[in-house]
Amino acid sequence: MDATILAIIASVIALITAILLVVHVMKEKPGTTTMQEISDFIKEGAMAYLNRQFKTVAIFAIVIFLILGLALPKGAYNNSYMIATGFLVGAVFSALAGYIGMGMSVRANVRTANAAKRSLKEALSVAFLGGSVTGLSVVALSLLGVSGFYYLFTKVFDIPVDTAPSLLIGFGFGASLISLFARVGGGIFTKAADVGADLVGKVEKNIPEDDPRNPAVIADNVGDNVGDCAGMGADLFETYAVTLIAAMILAASTLVTQTGAKSVEYPLLLGTIAVIASIIGIFFVRLGKKENIMGAMYKGMLATGLISAVGFYFATDYMLGDINIFFASLVGLGVTFFINIITEYYTSTKYNPVKKIAKASETGAGTNVITGLAVGLQSTLAPVILVCCAIAAAYYFGETSTLQNGIYGIAIAAVAMLSTTGLVIATDSYGPITDNAGGIAEMAELPEAVRKNTDALDAVGNTTKAVTKGYAICSAALAALVLFQAYGEELMKNAVGTTFEFGIENHMVLIGLFLGGVLPFLFSSFCMEAVGKAAHKVVEEVRRQFREIPGIMERKNKPQYDTCVDIVTKAALKEMIMPGAIAVLAPIAVGFILGPEALGGLLVGVIVAGLLLAIQMSNGGGAWDNAKKYIETGHFGGKGSDAHKAAVVGDTVGDPFKDTAGPALNALIKVINTIALIIAPTIATIHLFN
Amino acid sequence: MDATILAIIASVIALITAILLVVHVMKEKPGTTTMQEISDFIKEGAMAYLNRQFKTVAIFAIVIFLILGLALPKGAYNNSYMIATGFLVGAVFSALAGYIGMGMSVRANVRTANAAKRSLKEALSVAFLGGSVTGLSVVALSLLGVSGFYYLFTKVFDIPVDTAPSLLIGFGFGASLISLFARVGGGIFTKAADVGADLVGKVEKNIPEDDPRNPAVIADNVGDNVGDCAGMGADLFETYAVTLIAAMILAASTLVTQTGAKSVEYPLLLGTIAVIASIIGIFFVRLGKKENIMGAMYKGMLATGLISAVGFYFATDYMLGDINIFFASLVGLGVTFFINIITEYYTSTKYNPVKKIAKASETGAGTNVITGLAVGLQSTLAPVILVCCAIAAAYYFGETSTLQNGIYGIAIAAVAMLSTTGLVIATDSYGPITDNAGGIAEMAELPEAVRKNTDALDAVGNTTKAVTKGYAICSAALAALVLFQAYGEELMKNAVGTTFEFGIENHMVLIGLFLGGVLPFLFSSFCMEAVGKAAHKVVEEVRRQFREIPGIMERKNKPQYDTCVDIVTKAALKEMIMPGAIAVLAPIAVGFILGPEALGGLLVGVIVAGLLLAIQMSNGGGAWDNAKKYIETGHFGGKGSDAHKAAVVGDTVGDPFKDTAGPALNALIKVINTIALIIAPTIATIHLFN
Repeated sequence: MDATILAIIASVIALITAILLVVHVMKEKPGTTTMQEISDFIKEGAMAYLNRQFKTVAIFAIVIFLILGLALPKGAYNNSYMIATGFLVGAVFSALAGYIGMGMSVRANVRTANAAKRSLKEALSVAFLGGSVTGLSVVALSLLGVSGFYYLFTKVFDIPVDTAPSLLIGFGFGASLISLFARVGGGIFTKAADVGADLVGKVEKNIPEDDPRNPAVIADNVGDNVGDCAGMGADLFETYAVTLIAAMILAASTLVTQTGAKSVEYPLLLGTIAVIASIIGIFFVRLGKKENIMGAMYKGMLATGLISAVGFYFATDYMLGDINIFFASLVGLGVTFFINIITEYYTSTKYNPVKKIAKASETGAGTNVITGLAVGLQSTLAPVILVCCAIAAAYYFGETSTLQNGIYGIAIAAVAMLSTTGLVIATDSYGPITDNAGGIAEMAELPEAVRKNTDALDAVGNTTKAVTKGYAICSAALAALVLFQAYGEELMKNAVGTTFEFGIENHMVLIGLFLGGVLPFLFSSFCMEAVGKAAHKVVEEVRRQFREIPGIMERKNKPQYDTCVDIVTKAALKEMIMPGAIAVLAPIAVGFILGPEALGGLLVGVIVAGLLLAIQMSNGGGAWDNAKKYIETGHFGGKGSDAHKAAVVGDTVGDPFKDTAGPALNALIKVINTIALIIAPTIATIHLFN
Repeated sequence: MDATILAIIASVIALITAILLVVHVMKEKPGTTTMQEISDFIKEGAMAYLNRQFKTVAIFAIVIFLILGLALPKGAYNNSYMIATGFLVGAVFSALAGYIGMGMSVRANVRTANAAKRSLKEALSVAFLGGSVTGLSVVALSLLGVSGFYYLFTKVFDIPVDTAPSLLIGFGFGASLISLFARVGGGIFTKAADVGADLVGKVEKNIPEDDPRNPAVIADNVGDNVGDCAGMGADLFETYAVTLIAAMILAASTLVTQTGAKSVEYPLLLGTIAVIASIIGIFFVRLGKKENIMGAMYKGMLATGLISAVGFYFATDYMLGDINIFFASLVGLGVTFFINIITEYYTSTKYNPVKKIAKASETGAGTNVITGLAVGLQSTLAPVILVCCAIAAAYYFGETSTLQNGIYGIAIAAVAMLSTTGLVIATDSYGPITDNAGGIAEMAELPEAVRKNTDALDAVGNTTKAVTKGYAICSAALAALVLFQAYGEELMKNAVGTTFEFGIENHMVLIGLFLGGVLPFLFSSFCMEAVGKAAHKVVEEVRRQFREIPGIMERKNKPQYDTCVDIVTKAALKEMIMPGAIAVLAPIAVGFILGPEALGGLLVGVIVAGLLLAIQMSNGGGAWDNAKKYIETGHFGGKGSDAHKAAVVGDTVGDPFKDTAGPALNALIKVINTIALIIAPTIATIHLFN
């Protein structure tokens, strides 16, 4: 059967599985009235934010839709309309995946809290299956979009195979744009609420985390959903779609004469296998006798990876008949495996980096922050070497295959990395569910044992979140490199007779590299500042409520939760505009003003600097967070000691690093690369006439 | 007359002027016995450190000397011996400049304190002329080295003009290597002592800065000299030499057939003019009626810049007869001018960035650090755009000149930036002199008015230090780009018939870019961690002394200053080895294992990432420091308030950013680029046989 049809069928199967999982999770009771009340607060806040976020983004999206449809060259196959439509559907699908995931998350949280009354095992089951709904819908919608559009273009509109994939870039761009706003907006929301709540609650008022007397407590819980669930979902939706599309575009422009449609559709077959493997993998996540939660997660990932590997072998044999391409796909699985280990080393309480930060807290916040920054900076080395090895190995296998195409090897490695995406999302979005469950247990004053169970689940969430980010950024770097190559091909296709070279000895490429390098710095700075500013506002509001509403501290009066939610909602929406605009406008300005070579330099500059900064921020932030947790378990004086206070400062600094700026860089890299690909034909044409 | 001879004569004049200034400064009386005693403590500590630093580095240097002499291809003109000898002399000259500068600095400090008893004006005069001694010796020795060796090669050994400059790279490498160790070692020393002294003194014991009861106070004052004076001097010695050499090598390999020796010797003529202009500029630094200290400094710089510009016009007309090359030199002067403005904007208490950080301190150390990081990240944009504009403009003038060589335009812009180096060093090394003077005034219990004068002088030191770093890194980026081009030329010269291209579409170049990009991150992380670790040891020692020596706080017993000096000395020497080794080994490993394309990528990767990180760290650190100062002048609660405590944490974080990791990146970039140039012939030959 056709690989495209298989991909569509697999997506539908995954969606049906997701629905069955929803039904299963909803069977669990939502607990007491108080629990439901609190859960409703969170649900309303989260949904209200998501609605407003998408309303704001919709304006952006419609403008871009019109520009794409009207300003792009119409081309031989109504290219501009195809790209514009793809863009819109990509954006809508991504938003849809966000709604489904978050809708599940805000219902699974209270049910997890309820299941935690019974046992750790049952709570894990509810939370993880809730997360799996997000995982499966994201992956299924992404694969469905790509394969559906590809089917439409090639079978319905009869667009030739060597052209159709380049029209898919619209879908990828739509996904990237939503991902950018969801990551930035959600990231600002969650961290402004978190930092703001902690600064007054923990530091000034000395009340614990998730205490219902804190006016920002609901905003904090809402933030977990809009940042870690909706934002992360959009991020990986985009990763999945764009990686597939990049591989297909590359194959279309370099391999069709050699292989026909096979090399183009091969990535879809890999995606199909990965989706099926993910569905199976979910059922491998079971708590063993030792109650090792992280171990349970790893079982699922390992199963998915192994099933994928076997499937990839047969798929490669069937479609391309070349063992070297299979090896290239193994490179991708290898990257996933090693980035897990590297990230765990830098962010887990078991190893030296986190312990070093904890120890440095003894001499105060200054040395804690210095050491945390050093750990983050240092943690870039291993992932970069891993990515370099992957590039070299995948290129080698691609080059020595019968296709003799090294870049295709890199593209396939990137696609193979996607095989565990469903599981990665499930383990990640399980995080906010358990986090919320803990919050609900605290606020509803459930017995201590319940909170103990949710805390155990939540502790793992920190590591899975860090792993997701490392995974996403490495896969982003590989996929973006393929997009960059496709950009070069696209230029040459549209300016026949001209060769475009991107030598760094060319001063325009150098200028592009510098400008590309500075973008992640600038972008991160806006994200960080936005969190700082919004947190400041939350602090003022919380202080105001404690001052003006009598009896909050004595539990005689309830604080106004909604004003805090409103403040961070407005701040997040306002502050996400600027970084979003930079991401969209920078490649256009550089491309049209400085030309195709400078734009090429910019693409690579943003990939290299973006990868470095993103790893530094994600790992550094994760390490700070766990250094605080390490102290809380009784080391260096334990909770309440001076070392702990210093560690709280480090954690506060790490928050916007790891949950706002760092993960958003992934989307930044992709948005810029997809835009370059979209404007490449126009730039090439202008270049021809100059 | 010959430009080379002129350069030698100008260097000697500058050295004589420096000696006259020494005599002048030494005429000032060193004050009371207590003042002299304290000054002697500082002098001994500083000299002891410098001796041990150079002893450690000497081992490194001798090994490298032997490797250069024995392992490099001997070539047609005993190339390997020439390069090895140049290396040794470069290292010795750089060390010599460090000794002269620091020798002056530790004598001018107590004399400045004494002059401050009389007036601000006289104190400024002593301090600035003391700094000028460093400025003139650094510039003179650097120009003397380059022109002397060039004379030796071309006139004594009769090496042709198209080959001689490439042998100068040995001198440049020697200077870079010393600069690297001086910056890293000195940077670790000064910040470990500073942070350690503050953490116990200010935070735990509540005693003011420079209080003689603090056992680490002498170490702190010694640190100012070894870091800000000796380290900075070595840094700019290297900047001066390598920039000249880069321009000369480029001219030698691309322009000799066209211009003969003229284009090669033209940079020496520019250097000559700059040295003379610097001598004159020094006398323009005078305090006006408004007592605006920064204004006095600017007067000197502006005078030097203008005199240089006029001189450049005639020099260009005389040697190359091309107005466009003169314009390229103006681009360099423009960069110096604008980088001053940009740096001042981001680090001065007068503008928004510093005020933002100060305001963020109100909600604690967490938001202070977040905002400071955001400011640092954001401050990379303007300098990068400035550098890009400079590249574009200088390239344009070079390309449209009769020489038709864009890169030569960039080289000349970089050389023109050197014109103010002497003044920049003088204003910078005036910093530790006044800082020490303040310390001596405090410790010798001089009247309040004296301390007020030294404080006024010292406040300006923060800004001049930040400006120096911005200046050094921008000039480093330009010079390194020229070195990278020379690397490409050198490869092709040694592998005739092969063209080397550094396209970022080549996966080996990409791998090189990634590896080059990660180096500054790794290098900074080692520097930061070293400061953290060494500061920790200082804290423990200071706590021990307060515990074990009775009566320190009551001034009945003196603390043991020397143990603290000893601890940071040992720590700095031990911790500088690793980053130094990375810098030397990385390009060699990548060049020989991954080949010439990957090494080319590495060179550009380290330039781009190094520039970005260095600016972020220098400006961020400067902004944190001044945000603290801003609060101390009475804003947001003033000294002792919670906001002030939060700002102290930010300042502590900024310390290793701005004084250890940030400025050392400059040397890192240069060391890697000079090594690449030295091994280029060997790599090219290996490449030919593969």
